[in-house]
Amino acid sequence: MPVSPLTDLSRLCVHTITTKPWALDDAVRNYAAAGVKGITVWRQALEGRNVADSGKLIRDHGLSIVSLCRGGFFPALAPADRAKAIDENRRCIDEAAALGAPMIVLVVGAVPGQSLVESRKQITDGIAAVLPHAQAAGVKLAIEPLHPMYANDRSAVNTMGQARAMCNQLKSPFVGIAADVYHLWWDDNLEAEIKASGREGTLFAFHICDWRTPTVDFLNDRGLMGEGCIPIRQIRGWVEEAGFKGFNEVEIFSNRLWSQDQSQFLENIKSAYLNHS
Amino acid sequence: MPVSPLTDLSRLCVHTITTKPWALDDAVRNYAAAGVKGITVWRQALEGRNVADSGKLIRDHGLSIVSLCRGGFFPALAPADRAKAIDENRRCIDEAAALGAPMIVLVVGAVPGQSLVESRKQITDGIAAVLPHAQAAGVKLAIEPLHPMYANDRSAVNTMGQARAMCNQLKSPFVGIAADVYHLWWDDNLEAEIKASGREGTLFAFHICDWRTPTVDFLNDRGLMGEGCIPIRQIRGWVEEAGFKGFNEVEIFSNRLWSQDQSQFLENIKSAYLNHS
Repeated sequence: MPVSPLTDLSRLCVHTITTKPWALDDAVRNYAAAGVKGITVWRQALEGRNVADSGKLIRDHGLSIVSLCRGGFFPALAPADRAKAIDENRRCIDEAAALGAPMIVLVVGAVPGQSLVESRKQITDGIAAVLPHAQAAGVKLAIEPLHPMYANDRSAVNTMGQARAMCNQLKSPFVGIAADVYHLWWDDNLEAEIKASGREGTLFAFHICDWRTPTVDFLNDRGLMGEGCIPIRQIRGWVEEAGFKGFNEVEIFSNRLWSQDQSQFLENIKSAYLNHS
Repeated sequence: MPVSPLTDLSRLCVHTITTKPWALDDAVRNYAAAGVKGITVWRQALEGRNVADSGKLIRDHGLSIVSLCRGGFFPALAPADRAKAIDENRRCIDEAAALGAPMIVLVVGAVPGQSLVESRKQITDGIAAVLPHAQAAGVKLAIEPLHPMYANDRSAVNTMGQARAMCNQLKSPFVGIAADVYHLWWDDNLEAEIKASGREGTLFAFHICDWRTPTVDFLNDRGLMGEGCIPIRQIRGWVEEAGFKGFNEVEIFSNRLWSQDQSQFLENIKSAYLNHS
């Protein structure tokens, strides 16, 4: 069944990293003026700022804070380093609470050369360790599976299926999944996994951008919606059928797009959002 | 159970692309002198040469021809282009027969922006169309699943599971799978899929190299065994438990390694083969 186009910006969220050249104040002012309704704040945008004041600034401009991005990076060879990662994630939870963000996106991490099975165990243990702190703070944790090309160094969780298995093990209303089309579009289990996640109540977030061909950089060559091959609208349809009613979050890392005039880029995001997602 | 190291070169095969700077004559002479036992010939190494004579040259040097690399690239938007691809694959089969190669590796293809489901259908149809020709020539076809980072432009078959599904649909002793650790190492179903493929009689080939971190080029930055994170020996163990008795084929695309002295590189391949695979 064809999925209806989006007709307004009421569920459009932009990640601060998407317009990286802008400091937080500029991002907030420009997003609000452009009619964007949600913002996901990257931690580096908060560096050197008062976090609670930043949250107030955002709310005063009428924007909803969708997530703080990002916690995670739990696995490490040395137990002391895993303990440090857990401490850092507790600080991230405190930061989310101070900001007024209801959720943290977790890029869960991996250790080059360590088996993915062992890394996934360390990730599960790490999330379990910070979970009481998250629950006490009222902050949800969204595991973001990353594309298999990041399996060795950024995330040992590479499919929605693996993220669901982790959620099922942790069994908490505070642990769920951030589904990003960039990482998951190729997976032929995606529709089934999204729907299962919806049934299980773990579909916490939905991130959009596009996959360009050729992609020339492993990290910073994502495309604006419509510039690539991802059936974004179809996947949004699955997400909505699964009961998701949250924001559609535009998260793009792109040296090419960061080098453009960011006000024009934000206008392009709005049209791409309406036309291609 | 720990897998025993390889103790000799009796199952070492090298792909001509691995030592791309060498013309076929040089590759054949140097491989044979170094004690390599098998060769997989890339079609570009045959350009401008008599194919039957090339096969004789290889056999005269005591090398086994493992495969001709590569056929495939079946999907296309226009039916006429799909027909052309089928013709080209028939020519590739003729070339394999003339060379004396018992098998062709298929990089099956994808069409940027076309759904992966549709591309997989076109691939299955394409293989079915050339299968009688392959069978008459006595040439097997090995579907090589490629890493999901190639899903949009090189291969709509990205897991061993998808390749098995295709084999089960085509049901022929002439259609099987080339399992390459580079493309598949991250998949947590890999052990089960390899063993299922072994049971089904479709495990036709095993390719090795390594995944470097960071990887700086989408195509040409593979590592020599031991330079990366892939548990090659463990995967070889699964392949052998699955009943595979063929060659371990070293297939490396690397601008870095192609720029080295290729005789020294071949010696490094031999030690890496014994120490890390």
